[in-house]
Amino acid sequence: MRLPYKSTRLSMIVSIIGIGLIGGSMAISLQENGFATKVIGVDAIREHEKKAIRRYLIDEALPLEEAVKGSDIIIVSTPVDVMLKVLPQVLDLVNKKQVVLEVGSTKEHLLTELKSHPNRQRLVATHPMAGTEYSGPEAAIPNLYDGKYTVIVDQEDSAKDAVKIAEDLYRSMNMNITYLGATEHDVHTAYVSHISHISSFALALTVLEKEKNEGRIFELASSGFGSTVRLAKSSPNMWIPIFRQNRDNVMTILDEYISTLSEFRTMLIKKDFDTFYDKIEEANNIRKIIS
Amino acid sequence: MRLPYKSTRLSMIVSIIGIGLIGGSMAISLQENGFATKVIGVDAIREHEKKAIRRYLIDEALPLEEAVKGSDIIIVSTPVDVMLKVLPQVLDLVNKKQVVLEVGSTKEHLLTELKSHPNRQRLVATHPMAGTEYSGPEAAIPNLYDGKYTVIVDQEDSAKDAVKIAEDLYRSMNMNITYLGATEHDVHTAYVSHISHISSFALALTVLEKEKNEGRIFELASSGFGSTVRLAKSSPNMWIPIFRQNRDNVMTILDEYISTLSEFRTMLIKKDFDTFYDKIEEANNIRKIIS
Repeated sequence: MRLPYKSTRLSMIVSIIGIGLIGGSMAISLQENGFATKVIGVDAIREHEKKAIRRYLIDEALPLEEAVKGSDIIIVSTPVDVMLKVLPQVLDLVNKKQVVLEVGSTKEHLLTELKSHPNRQRLVATHPMAGTEYSGPEAAIPNLYDGKYTVIVDQEDSAKDAVKIAEDLYRSMNMNITYLGATEHDVHTAYVSHISHISSFALALTVLEKEKNEGRIFELASSGFGSTVRLAKSSPNMWIPIFRQNRDNVMTILDEYISTLSEFRTMLIKKDFDTFYDKIEEANNIRKIIS
Repeated sequence: MRLPYKSTRLSMIVSIIGIGLIGGSMAISLQENGFATKVIGVDAIREHEKKAIRRYLIDEALPLEEAVKGSDIIIVSTPVDVMLKVLPQVLDLVNKKQVVLEVGSTKEHLLTELKSHPNRQRLVATHPMAGTEYSGPEAAIPNLYDGKYTVIVDQEDSAKDAVKIAEDLYRSMNMNITYLGATEHDVHTAYVSHISHISSFALALTVLEKEKNEGRIFELASSGFGSTVRLAKSSPNMWIPIFRQNRDNVMTILDEYISTLSEFRTMLIKKDFDTFYDKIEEANNIRKIIS
């Protein structure tokens, strides 16, 4: 049983900049668990703001400056390219009591850009490891974060009180917290998230190309296929900025992935099914890790 | 609402040879919908037979010959390499009223081998397109086939009454039926099933290799990663025989897949994110196909 979060502050007003899957789902959680007494939304797309109000994700929509000035916590949950522009603006506006959280999938590039900002200490770089293949405020769902991990990145560059509030916020959402440096974070997420998307996009393209020529192929698609291409539904507006900012890590892992696939190819050419068998058994070790 | 199947025959005794995920789940469905009045199990592993009895998948376990002789329908649901040995034995034993169904993932090799068998007409080659990453009788689940497609392959090589009974059986399980030639079947399943498994095995290996050196990497694994590597839990005992028998098709598609991934790699090298964006948008078309 998860009890409602008991805030030690009387009223915690939270602004969420970018009300999509990630920001919108945080809005739901923070309202439901009582951490936020009020949620203000800011989105570049007016239609998103309207949807977010209709769906009760946010209490009101305000222009960026007004929202930031009236909030205790500002969560920036835009695509990572937009963060490069929005975060300096937000940091320019905050005082020494306010806390800014960003929740992007890549860190090194962004945090290097922000390194010398006078209010850098008010920013806590975080990455709640949860999502779906859908995007926009209509994709926001309750309990998206429940029981998952969040990463707090380069915590030593943030003020202690700001980190504490970030930890409180994520714990209120029943998340586990882990700590990484920006470089390490970007390598790890490339392995457990970014390459999965590349693999899925490529698989979808390969099979869609065949479908064009043959048709009827998807009649036979089973749930296994659905599972491996699920991520191929993900939006390029979210993913291209991630691949751009984490390009070097993604390339390294893509090379390793292609090389593993090429080994499989060689085994097929040589009809070396004994080695192939051993490789599959080795891959089965993923059972111990993914339930 | 699905109504219980009304059999036109008073008692339909079904033998299932190979009581794993596929055979065991068929056993559950055929008993629950009333199609089978009795299910006899045959498995090379005695422990599987015992488990299947304990789990009420089968009414009794018998030696192959006895089981075949006492059944109206014999379903062969072993790995596809075992089918090469078992199916001729079963066909040797059946009379002109009995029906043999095989449910393997590859067809061309097997059906070529069986082409000249005097009882070939009693065999209906089928492929119910459903499964999970688990195997063995403990993996058998109700409703695995509900609403999915089954393929009847090379139907013209089977007796009409046998095809009719196969159709009745699959319709009793609420499956849609489609018809393909063996060659076409093997190409299609290579695209919508076999390559997904290769992609997943390779992804699991790539990330497991990294974990060995770095550790802690899986703490961050989100549901997206879990989805793309789910199939990597699948048993080599099932999959190596499939890759062996469908080697040429799998190689062709693996080449196409590697080539798509290499295109992505080139885009990353050139920082050509505009083309990459277009490719992801194209991959998004999978939304129209996979719900």
